[in-house]
Amino acid sequence: MGGHYAQIVKFERKDLPVGTPVVGMIGGGQLARMTQEAAIALGIQLRVLAEGPTVSAAQAVADAPVGDYRDPATVRAFAAEADVVTFDHEHVPTELLRELEAAGVAVRPGPDALVHAQDKAVMRQRLDTIDAPSPAHQVVAGREDVADFAKRTGGFPIILKTTRGGYDGKGVWVVDGPDDPTVAQAFAAGVPILAEEKVDFVRELSAVVARSPHGQAVAYPIVESVQRDGICVEVTAPAPGLAPERAAQAQQTALRIAGELGVVGVLAVEMFEARDGRLLVNELAMRPHNTGHWSIEGAVTSQFENHLRAVLDLPLGSPAARAPYTVMVNVLGGDVADMHRGLLHCLARDPGLRVHFYGKSVKPGRKVGHVTAYGDDLEQVRERARHAAAYLTGTIDE
Amino acid sequence: MGGHYAQIVKFERKDLPVGTPVVGMIGGGQLARMTQEAAIALGIQLRVLAEGPTVSAAQAVADAPVGDYRDPATVRAFAAEADVVTFDHEHVPTELLRELEAAGVAVRPGPDALVHAQDKAVMRQRLDTIDAPSPAHQVVAGREDVADFAKRTGGFPIILKTTRGGYDGKGVWVVDGPDDPTVAQAFAAGVPILAEEKVDFVRELSAVVARSPHGQAVAYPIVESVQRDGICVEVTAPAPGLAPERAAQAQQTALRIAGELGVVGVLAVEMFEARDGRLLVNELAMRPHNTGHWSIEGAVTSQFENHLRAVLDLPLGSPAARAPYTVMVNVLGGDVADMHRGLLHCLARDPGLRVHFYGKSVKPGRKVGHVTAYGDDLEQVRERARHAAAYLTGTIDE
Repeated sequence: MGGHYAQIVKFERKDLPVGTPVVGMIGGGQLARMTQEAAIALGIQLRVLAEGPTVSAAQAVADAPVGDYRDPATVRAFAAEADVVTFDHEHVPTELLRELEAAGVAVRPGPDALVHAQDKAVMRQRLDTIDAPSPAHQVVAGREDVADFAKRTGGFPIILKTTRGGYDGKGVWVVDGPDDPTVAQAFAAGVPILAEEKVDFVRELSAVVARSPHGQAVAYPIVESVQRDGICVEVTAPAPGLAPERAAQAQQTALRIAGELGVVGVLAVEMFEARDGRLLVNELAMRPHNTGHWSIEGAVTSQFENHLRAVLDLPLGSPAARAPYTVMVNVLGGDVADMHRGLLHCLARDPGLRVHFYGKSVKPGRKVGHVTAYGDDLEQVRERARHAAAYLTGTIDE
Repeated sequence: MGGHYAQIVKFERKDLPVGTPVVGMIGGGQLARMTQEAAIALGIQLRVLAEGPTVSAAQAVADAPVGDYRDPATVRAFAAEADVVTFDHEHVPTELLRELEAAGVAVRPGPDALVHAQDKAVMRQRLDTIDAPSPAHQVVAGREDVADFAKRTGGFPIILKTTRGGYDGKGVWVVDGPDDPTVAQAFAAGVPILAEEKVDFVRELSAVVARSPHGQAVAYPIVESVQRDGICVEVTAPAPGLAPERAAQAQQTALRIAGELGVVGVLAVEMFEARDGRLLVNELAMRPHNTGHWSIEGAVTSQFENHLRAVLDLPLGSPAARAPYTVMVNVLGGDVADMHRGLLHCLARDPGLRVHFYGKSVKPGRKVGHVTAYGDDLEQVRERARHAAAYLTGTIDE
C-alpha cells in the first residue's frame, strides 16, 4: 500500500454474501455514480477510486478510497481489493495498466484496447488498418504540416486535436487558415497533434455496444447526438429517420471495432453522418458514455448494467429500446446554483419525466445532470426533455 | 449523541451541492437498499440507520451509521442530520416518533399514521370508523373469547394475530378449533391478540399508493400477489382479469385510507378478493412494499422513487405500467449459498430478465433477492420469472 491511498475499506469480502463480485472503478464521476445504481440491483459491490472524498460517485457508494490514479502504488493497492478493474475515464496511464495486467489483474477494458480511446493517433492508425472509415487525418509537427494537410484534403477549415487528454471539446481547435492563432494554441500544449478533415456533416450519430471477454456483444439502437461547444447536449434514440440498413451499418462498424480492438465493456463510437453520404468514425470511448444515458429508462438493459456484466463476463442483457422514442438532454451548469429548486416545477409539469442529478456543484457549462423523456411522439418527447433541462438550468423560468 | 451511535457522517451538508435533500431512513434492509437506487438518480443523499455495519443497505450507501432504532438518543442524533426521517420497517416505537415530531423533526409517515401499520387492533378499529371493509375481527383476551368469536363469525378455522411485531407470517396462527395448541402459542407471547375471520378468498390483491404531505396521491395498478407460508412469493401487475371497476374500487379504498390516516409516503394495502365477492383489507404497510417491487422496471416511476418524492413533498411521478404484464418472483434462500453462480444460466437464457440481489447471505426461506420479467404474454412472462427464481434458489437445475 502506498501513495495517498489510506482510507479503510468498509466491506471486506468476508462481510459480503458468498460469491459477491467486487468491481473496482477508477474515477468517481457521474459514470461511476450511475454504474452504482446498476451494481446495487445486481448485488455487485462497486468500489470507486475517487479523486476526492466528496466527488459524485463517492456520495453514492460505501467504499470510495481517495487516491491518485497516476500513482502505481495507489492503483495496485486499489486493484488488489477487486475482482476486476474498470474505468470512469480514460486517463490512467497505459503503461501502468500494462503493468497491472502483467501482474495478473483483470483490467477491463485492457490497456491494448484502451489505448485507442486514450490516443487519437493510435486510434486513427488502427481504424485505417481495419478499414473502419475515418475523416482524413495526419499527425502534424508544425505549421507547415498543417498547411500541407489542408492543401491535400480540400483546404481550410480543418481540425487540430491533442492526441491525448482532450474531452468535452477541450483539446480541439477549428483552424480557419494557416495563420489562425489556434494553430499556435494547439502546438503550445507540447503534445503530439492530430490534424483532421473538418467533416461537413448532416448530424452526429453514436453507436454504443458492449462486449464481454469471451466475445459476446450487443449493440444499442443508433442514436442521434447534438453537440454544442464540443459537449454533448441532446441525444435521441433511435436516430430519427435513419434508414435501417444504415443503422445496421453503424452498429456493425462499432461491433467490428469492439472485436478487432478486443474491447471489454461498453464502447461508444461517435460518428459523423457526412453530407456526402459517408459514415465516419469521430471518437471512441471505452466506458459508459453520455450518448448511452438514455438507456437507463429507454432500453431493457442500461449501458451501465451491461458494462458491469461485460467486465464480469456475465451474459449481456438486451439492448432493445422500450419506447418508440427516448430523448435525453444534459443539464449544464448555468446561473442557478440550487438545482433542486427547479424540481418542483419540472416534476409537477411532467409526471413521466426522469431526472438525474450527479451530486455536482454548479459551474457554468459543467454537466451536473440529465433528464430523460420517452414516448410515442418525437416532438412531444423532445419538448418535454428540452423544457425540463432548460428550466433546471435556469435559461427559462416558466 | 448517545447510544451506539458513533460512526462519523462522511457527508456533511457543506460537502453536497446546494439544495441537496438529505433523507434519513431508519432500517438497513433491502427496502432501504432499493431506495438508494432512486436516491442516486434524484441527487438525494440517503442516510441509513443500520442494524449492523454489513446489512443490506449499508453496503450500498455512503453513510450508514449503526444504531438501535429503539434508543431515543440514537434516533434523535440520526434525525438531526436529515431533512426528513422515514422508514425501512415499522418497528420504531410510536412514542419515540411522537417525541421526535414534537421536537420539530419531519417524520414521514408520522406516528399518528404509522401506528396503523404497527398495531393491527388500532388499524382494524380505524378502518371500521372509515367504513373500509375488513374481515370480522375482535381483540381477544383468552380461550373463551376465541371460542365466542368463532361462534359469532361462522365457526372455526379462525386467525389469531399478535397486534404488534408480526411480519412475513410470523405472529400469525390458523386456529382449527377451541383446543388447537396454536391458541396457547398465540397467548404465550404475552401481547394483545387479535382474532380475525379466516377469509375464504379467491386470491390476494395489493393496492400500492403514494401520498405527499400536501395531499397529492397516486395509485399504482392493482396487483395480484401469491403468498406462501405468509411470505409474498409472486406478484403479477396488473392483477389478471380484474374488472376495471373492481380495480378502481381497490385503488379508491387505498387512496381513502391514505387520506383518512394522513399517510405520507408509500402505503401498501393488502387485500383479499373473497369468494363471496367482498374486497377486504388484510394488512397495511407504510413504506415501499414487496408487492410494489415490480414497479422498478414495470412502472414509469418506481415505488421507491415515489416514496422519496412523497416524503420530500416533491410532485409524485406517474405510476402507470410500462408493459402489459410484469411479474416479480421473490428469490428465497434455499440450498445454494452462492446466489451469483446461477446468474450465468439465468442471464444467458433470458436477456430481458431483471435480477435484484439484496446483499444478504442465504438462510432458508430468507428473502435474498427478486427477479422481474415483463412483456405482452402473461404465461411467458410468468414462466420466465418463475424459472429464474427457482434456478437461483436451487430448486431446479436446468
